[in-house]
Amino acid sequence: MPENKVGLLGGGVIGGGWAARFALNGWNVNLYDPDPEAKRKVDAVLTNARSAYGKLVRAPLPTEGQVTVVSSIEEMTDGVSFIQESAPERLELKQSLLMEVDKYAPSNVVIGSSTSGLLPSKLQDGMTHPERLVVGHPFNPVYLLPLVEIVPGNKSASWALESAANTYTALGMKPLLLKKEVDGFVADRLLEALWREALWLVNDGVATMSEVDDAIRFGAGLRWSFMGTMLTYRIAGGEGGMRHFMSQFGPALQWPWTHLMDVPELTEGFLDKLEAQSDTQAGGASIRELEALRDDCLVSVIHGLAGQNYASGEVLNKYEETLKSNPNI
Amino acid sequence: MPENKVGLLGGGVIGGGWAARFALNGWNVNLYDPDPEAKRKVDAVLTNARSAYGKLVRAPLPTEGQVTVVSSIEEMTDGVSFIQESAPERLELKQSLLMEVDKYAPSNVVIGSSTSGLLPSKLQDGMTHPERLVVGHPFNPVYLLPLVEIVPGNKSASWALESAANTYTALGMKPLLLKKEVDGFVADRLLEALWREALWLVNDGVATMSEVDDAIRFGAGLRWSFMGTMLTYRIAGGEGGMRHFMSQFGPALQWPWTHLMDVPELTEGFLDKLEAQSDTQAGGASIRELEALRDDCLVSVIHGLAGQNYASGEVLNKYEETLKSNPNI
Repeated sequence: MPENKVGLLGGGVIGGGWAARFALNGWNVNLYDPDPEAKRKVDAVLTNARSAYGKLVRAPLPTEGQVTVVSSIEEMTDGVSFIQESAPERLELKQSLLMEVDKYAPSNVVIGSSTSGLLPSKLQDGMTHPERLVVGHPFNPVYLLPLVEIVPGNKSASWALESAANTYTALGMKPLLLKKEVDGFVADRLLEALWREALWLVNDGVATMSEVDDAIRFGAGLRWSFMGTMLTYRIAGGEGGMRHFMSQFGPALQWPWTHLMDVPELTEGFLDKLEAQSDTQAGGASIRELEALRDDCLVSVIHGLAGQNYASGEVLNKYEETLKSNPNI
Repeated sequence: MPENKVGLLGGGVIGGGWAARFALNGWNVNLYDPDPEAKRKVDAVLTNARSAYGKLVRAPLPTEGQVTVVSSIEEMTDGVSFIQESAPERLELKQSLLMEVDKYAPSNVVIGSSTSGLLPSKLQDGMTHPERLVVGHPFNPVYLLPLVEIVPGNKSASWALESAANTYTALGMKPLLLKKEVDGFVADRLLEALWREALWLVNDGVATMSEVDDAIRFGAGLRWSFMGTMLTYRIAGGEGGMRHFMSQFGPALQWPWTHLMDVPELTEGFLDKLEAQSDTQAGGASIRELEALRDDCLVSVIHGLAGQNYASGEVLNKYEETLKSNPNI
């Protein structure tokens, strides 16, 4: 039987994804969510994740941990060595939940918060042991995407940051430890900038939602699966490197190529347009079908990169080495 | 011998990429570039592209076309059925070159411009046959990435847009026909919004260039290789779909998650920082090595998606069908 046990607070898309990632990596899971449907929802995510892992990981998997849906925060903390909070994105709610977790969990148990943009220093307000709270922000689907942003609050202890990084790494993830906290952290600031501009293009009738997506996935998106903007632009600079690239393309930053500060008004008419275009784009596929397509494509892309031993392929390869060297397998 | 011949104006990274894509798809190429090094540079791109195609396309390739570097624009237009302009990104220069092409090329020969953001209506200014000018904006590496944005100017004829789309499709590309012209078109507006925010994160010391890249390639970038932001967010909305997603996350568009309107000042100090971080990130790899890594990863990712017959994998699969059904192979 697995020896590690994690406590999860919240069983939505993100919390369920954490349950799957921990369980498939051999951790027992205590999960608390006031939603009476939590068990069913988490089981659905686990089913998807099991199928994806069956295709993704070629090494034998550890014995799957047990996911137990418990009925209180106190029970959730019982015997766990790590806690991950994935409650709805409301500061006061998260603060009150964290204060309650703080009451029951021994002070050496690290708490990672899945918040996608709330500042950890604010989450620490009111905690008795704020030093053990760090942000550990994952990406959907949590059981497949390696990235997790670790963000320190003012009071986060270095041992807590290190422990969180070690835990996430052991789950086959790629922790990115940020130097300081900033609203939206790194990844969501980048995504939000792109999304804001995408909404304008649809609002202004320059492109449909499908076309906006095509403009990414048939072009830069293919590169982004393994190489970010910065290294790509270094290559574009040729032998002159980054400084040459900046001298060529830096001035374009000032050109009127984005709406920037503005945000399109979310009128009923615009929301109708988005809904209709999204339905057209999905072409009748259900969310379950789209999730399965997404997961299959992710597995294929990560496998491809594993062949190159680069980017997320490296994470997968390391993952398999970890599994192979684990005597419990 | 191939029967199709294309005229290329400009033999830099983009022009050379076009030469490779056309030649490897069985077109003869006339290429004009005043740079005395043009032949050597284009040959280098062709070598990379041949290697990448050898790995990418499993069907037999057509007989490779001949690339001839010619010494005048008049000569470049000789016997060609399509022209692609990839001169430096200066409006007056492009206008004067296009006027000269206009003098020599028969009026039914379509001209595609590789401009990454200049409005086609402005490029048409002064042309005798502006109706045959369209933007055909590709992405680097041109011989591998399928996306090409086709943008109409005020005077572009529908037959010219259609002909350009057919030509690009025959080259294994994915044409995206925009409804109207707008500075930066679609893809570069999205890329520029993300890049501007990325520069701020480096400028403000929140993350290094490597970390910014990691925040993309281990997370959303993996998804973007086959699925854009819009469909991803539909899935995130669950059964409630796009409207539910907007009600949950629309308000965040107003949050201070981006610098937005501001552009970081490109001071010497900031440029030094970018140059140093870029060198660190490259870890001593040369541009040639980075290009080879990029191409190998792209081939792996596209192959993976071909297994799912989705996104760029579909383009590759169609490509192979086209090649298989081509009696000239």
